Amino acid sequence: MGTFIGHISPGLAFFSFGILYAVKFSLMVLRGEKIQLLSPSRTSGFRSCFKRIPIEGIMKIVYGTLAVMAELFYPPGVYKLIIYNKEKPDYPFTHPNEWQHITMYSYFALSGWVDIISQACLPRRLFLFENIAITIAFYIEALLLYSHMHGKERVENSVHTLLLLTCFLVCLILTVELWRPNDHILWFTKTCLVMIQGTWLLHAAFILYKPFTGKPWKEDDMANLMFVTNFFCWHIALNIILLVAIFSLTGLWLSRCSRRGESSALQDATERFSFHLEWADGTGPRSEYGKLQPAEEEMQLLQEYNI
Amino acid sequence: MGTFIGHISPGLAFFSFGILYAVKFSLMVLRGEKIQLLSPSRTSGFRSCFKRIPIEGIMKIVYGTLAVMAELFYPPGVYKLIIYNKEKPDYPFTHPNEWQHITMYSYFALSGWVDIISQACLPRRLFLFENIAITIAFYIEALLLYSHMHGKERVENSVHTLLLLTCFLVCLILTVELWRPNDHILWFTKTCLVMIQGTWLLHAAFILYKPFTGKPWKEDDMANLMFVTNFFCWHIALNIILLVAIFSLTGLWLSRCSRRGESSALQDATERFSFHLEWADGTGPRSEYGKLQPAEEEMQLLQEYNI
Amino acid sequence: MGTFIGHISPGLAFFSFGILYAVKFSLMVLRGEKIQLLSPSRTSGFRSCFKRIPIEGIMKIVYGTLAVMAELFYPPGVYKLIIYNKEKPDYPFTHPNEWQHITMYSYFALSGWVDIISQACLPRRLFLFENIAITIAFYIEALLLYSHMHGKERVENSVHTLLLLTCFLVCLILTVELWRPNDHILWFTKTCLVMIQGTWLLHAAFILYKPFTGKPWKEDDMANLMFVTNFFCWHIALNIILLVAIFSLTGLWLSRCSRRGESSALQDATERFSFHLEWADGTGPRSEYGKLQPAEEEMQLLQEYNI
Amino acid sequence: MGTFIGHISPGLAFFSFGILYAVKFSLMVLRGEKIQLLSPSRTSGFRSCFKRIPIEGIMKIVYGTLAVMAELFYPPGVYKLIIYNKEKPDYPFTHPNEWQHITMYSYFALSGWVDIISQACLPRRLFLFENIAITIAFYIEALLLYSHMHGKERVENSVHTLLLLTCFLVCLILTVELWRPNDHILWFTKTCLVMIQGTWLLHAAFILYKPFTGKPWKEDDMANLMFVTNFFCWHIALNIILLVAIFSLTGLWLSRCSRRGESSALQDATERFSFHLEWADGTGPRSEYGKLQPAEEEMQLLQEYNI
Repeated sequence: MGTFIGHISPGLAFFSFGILYAVKFSLMVLRGEKIQLLSPSRTSGFRSCFKRIPIEGIMKIVYGTLAVMAELFYPPGVYKLIIYNKEKPDYPFTHPNEWQHITMYSYFALSGWVDIISQACLPRRLFLFENIAITIAFYIEALLLYSHMHGKERVENSVHTLLLLTCFLVCLILTVELWRPNDHILWFTKTCLVMIQGTWLLHAAFILYKPFTGKPWKEDDMANLMFVTNFFCWHIALNIILLVAIFSLTGLWLSRCSRRGESSALQDATERFSFHLEWADGTGPRSEYGKLQPAEEEMQLLQEYNI
Repeated sequence: MGTFIGHISPGLAFFSFGILYAVKFSLMVLRGEKIQLLSPSRTSGFRSCFKRIPIEGIMKIVYGTLAVMAELFYPPGVYKLIIYNKEKPDYPFTHPNEWQHITMYSYFALSGWVDIISQACLPRRLFLFENIAITIAFYIEALLLYSHMHGKERVENSVHTLLLLTCFLVCLILTVELWRPNDHILWFTKTCLVMIQGTWLLHAAFILYKPFTGKPWKEDDMANLMFVTNFFCWHIALNIILLVAIFSLTGLWLSRCSRRGESSALQDATERFSFHLEWADGTGPRSEYGKLQPAEEEMQLLQEYNI
Repeated sequence: MGTFIGHISPGLAFFSFGILYAVKFSLMVLRGEKIQLLSPSRTSGFRSCFKRIPIEGIMKIVYGTLAVMAELFYPPGVYKLIIYNKEKPDYPFTHPNEWQHITMYSYFALSGWVDIISQACLPRRLFLFENIAITIAFYIEALLLYSHMHGKERVENSVHTLLLLTCFLVCLILTVELWRPNDHILWFTKTCLVMIQGTWLLHAAFILYKPFTGKPWKEDDMANLMFVTNFFCWHIALNIILLVAIFSLTGLWLSRCSRRGESSALQDATERFSFHLEWADGTGPRSEYGKLQPAEEEMQLLQEYNI
Repeated sequence: MGTFIGHISPGLAFFSFGILYAVKFSLMVLRGEKIQLLSPSRTSGFRSCFKRIPIEGIMKIVYGTLAVMAELFYPPGVYKLIIYNKEKPDYPFTHPNEWQHITMYSYFALSGWVDIISQACLPRRLFLFENIAITIAFYIEALLLYSHMHGKERVENSVHTLLLLTCFLVCLILTVELWRPNDHILWFTKTCLVMIQGTWLLHAAFILYKPFTGKPWKEDDMANLMFVTNFFCWHIALNIILLVAIFSLTGLWLSRCSRRGESSALQDATERFSFHLEWADGTGPRSEYGKLQPAEEEMQLLQEYNI
């Protein structure tokens, strides 16, 4: 749906995923957790299975399925589940945009099913398969975005090129994460890029279908093209600030919960975060530090494990 | 041969290789085998040499040689083993398409000869040379596909661009495999891409030479170009499902053969697969586990070797 | 400001950063220092905090802020802090170039603030955040340079493409440095590229706005385009020579200061440099050698730690 | 010099370097030698210094300097050491091709000087600086080749694009070699690419200036463009065969010299080669095996050091 709502809804979806990731990875970093490619085995049974269903998987399925439905049957009274138009003499293809969107959303919905099956139904979680599913979904999105751009106007192309760039970077990071699933820099870069994709889609909806001035952007004005890139750069800054804010709030909230009042909670969290980042390059120690050592011991550790 | 049969036959060849790889790598993963860059030395003698001839090498030689023959002498009565047309005044080149195909198929046939010499004739298998030979064959294919596209119509170009993308990804993976020959993720990604190349060539033959509607695709219709990408995305999904099915069936068949009835064979295979995947990132242990430990020991292992 | 002074001033800024980096990294290599992702904790208090303020951070803030001010209010009497022109009927965007430059300079100023906060105000230095800030600033510069080029003449495009290439290589190196902050080859390559960016911007100002012949370069003359690349290649050579000179002078100056007269100071520095370079590939020892061993011990070491 | 001789002479230069590399790296592999980033210190004195002058460095200087001279003063009576034509009113640039070639050849000559200084004059060899010098020379070649192509005909562009591709791959390999100087796969890939560059330049001279048919290739004939790529693919095969032949002959010659008659010399060399290749991935042992163990011990070793 090359419409206003057709850009707003995926924008909101990506943005909500970005927020979810931000909270999830902040919690994991602050608690010192790690992704395990293969989790220990779990109790089976329908009840415990039901409890383990991940919110992320449900969101992907709901968003994906709703979007596919909307592509096919929205606005009401329309039915687009046909590929060939059999009434015309040379059977031309119909609804190319809709079918590209359906393909894209289906892959995200599939990734949601893989998440749920892996996290809730199987006797042990297979993180690798979840990661592969979402990686493929983003690659498909990049491929379709690329072929989407043929024969569009220049402003629309500019907007979509920046979206494609963001999407492609997410693909790259997800590919690297297949081999390095616990790199903290990659976690937060990915989160930020997904958030940028979300807010940029929201902005794109307004640029393309509801410009604030009430008049469509002129295609032949260079200033327009230059401001598209400019706005995108501002989105980057905004989302980084938002990400830092979410991380800090999560740290605060976590320290409230655990009632560790002896030191500034936020600083403690930051320290622990830096610690994990330092380890992230693979040369640091692999053991776990349940609690931070006093300053002197720490100094020693730092000198030992310098890169 | 820019004909229907000229796209169907390499399509079938690539697809059969994909299936062969899928079975081969599934077996290797399920049995916990590894590729050895340099195998231990072997008994010589014509008999044992003959037994060791690999089916993969024979397939490459037969397909490659047949294809070269077909390019030169098919349809019967035609003889295309000339480069210059000496009858015309300025000696123009003739049969550029045919000579490109001949070059491409020859490299695959050569790779087959290297396979056979390395696996059957030499006193020890040199896996590295086999790998280099097939890598070069795919790079040559990518190079020729790229130069193939000059001056073609848009739909044909779209189809070939997607083929080139797949081929180039195979090249990249093969290059990485020169240094990391035992990465399970790379094995199955490569297998899936080769299968996609096969089915996509089959589909391409129909798109370009036998459209289902009976009328050739219009070049200037954007919907056509968009549906080409769309179909390609569906091929990806189909081949992934096929690959998972082959892996599962291999696992089932293997467990039937070995009569290990005490636990669900498929699940056991999956577990072992995940184990190997976990090791694939290079941080895990390099030793071999002949059989899986009971659940408790396993838990311990998992915590020790967490990445 | 697409003007002479608008290219000279960032050129000088980048060049001064290049010189600063050259001295800084030469000193670090000659003294055998390393960047620590997370420094040991420091004494707090306003005085010691003030002393730790880094010159690099101040330079970034001063340059960045001045440049933003100049974009907005220079020449005097001009006020460009508007995006939409509200007087015209369709509210067109105004000053696209200026707003792109403002965005670019703001990110560099922000990076300066991050430097100061991390190095002076926080209880411990967080090198990773400084590195991320400057990396983002360069990526933004690359993105804006890319969108800057639309609709420009060929000579101007050639000049900017080479600038973009340099900027993109800096981005790549900074990205790799997130994971390998202590690679000496990357340090000096980055330094050299920043210096090239500086001198090239200075040259570009003359090419585009004050050609030596007094006449603007013709756009349709191939010789002009070819000489642009040619001049760029000469800039590379010049900056490499300058970098080697700075390294040697720093070595000389350091040996004067420390009054170690027993051996040629420069050679000693070079030896130590090579030593560190040898370690840079990650396979060498991680311990520190306060002073170099006598020749015989050294030989032994070299044989032990050969790669 | 966009002339026949201007393509033949660099072609011969690159080809002779390729042959030199092939022999050098074959010997190093067969003898089990390694490149040391920093060699042990050496005896000084003019005599021993003179003996250490490397043939590679002399070749680079002689070829480079001769080529620069030829660009400036060939054919005799011509003098091209001017950049601006001061006689015309707007001082246009002159001889852009010549100045690009001079820049390119100077960098190679400079690399030769760095080789000689590092290997003969300095108290210890600094391999890293030699490697950096030749890497920069190839990057400059790639950059100039790229800007060389503007405004040329299609066949000439095709020929140069393939040359640029080869050159760029050499750049990539040299860059990786800065960090992994002892990877055998990279050594031989680089050697083969340099040889291809040489033979392709020789062929290019004939295609562009002395076509075998006596008539220039038509620009608008697709068959011509396709055959250019085709010929390039054949060059790849030829050079690989040549490289294998050189390696085998070197092995034979080496075994003659050392009078080790007890086993087939060539096979022994091949085994040792494979051994080193197996180690090349960095996971194998770093120690040296002066002579190969008997078959049984070997088996054990292989199982231990499996990747």
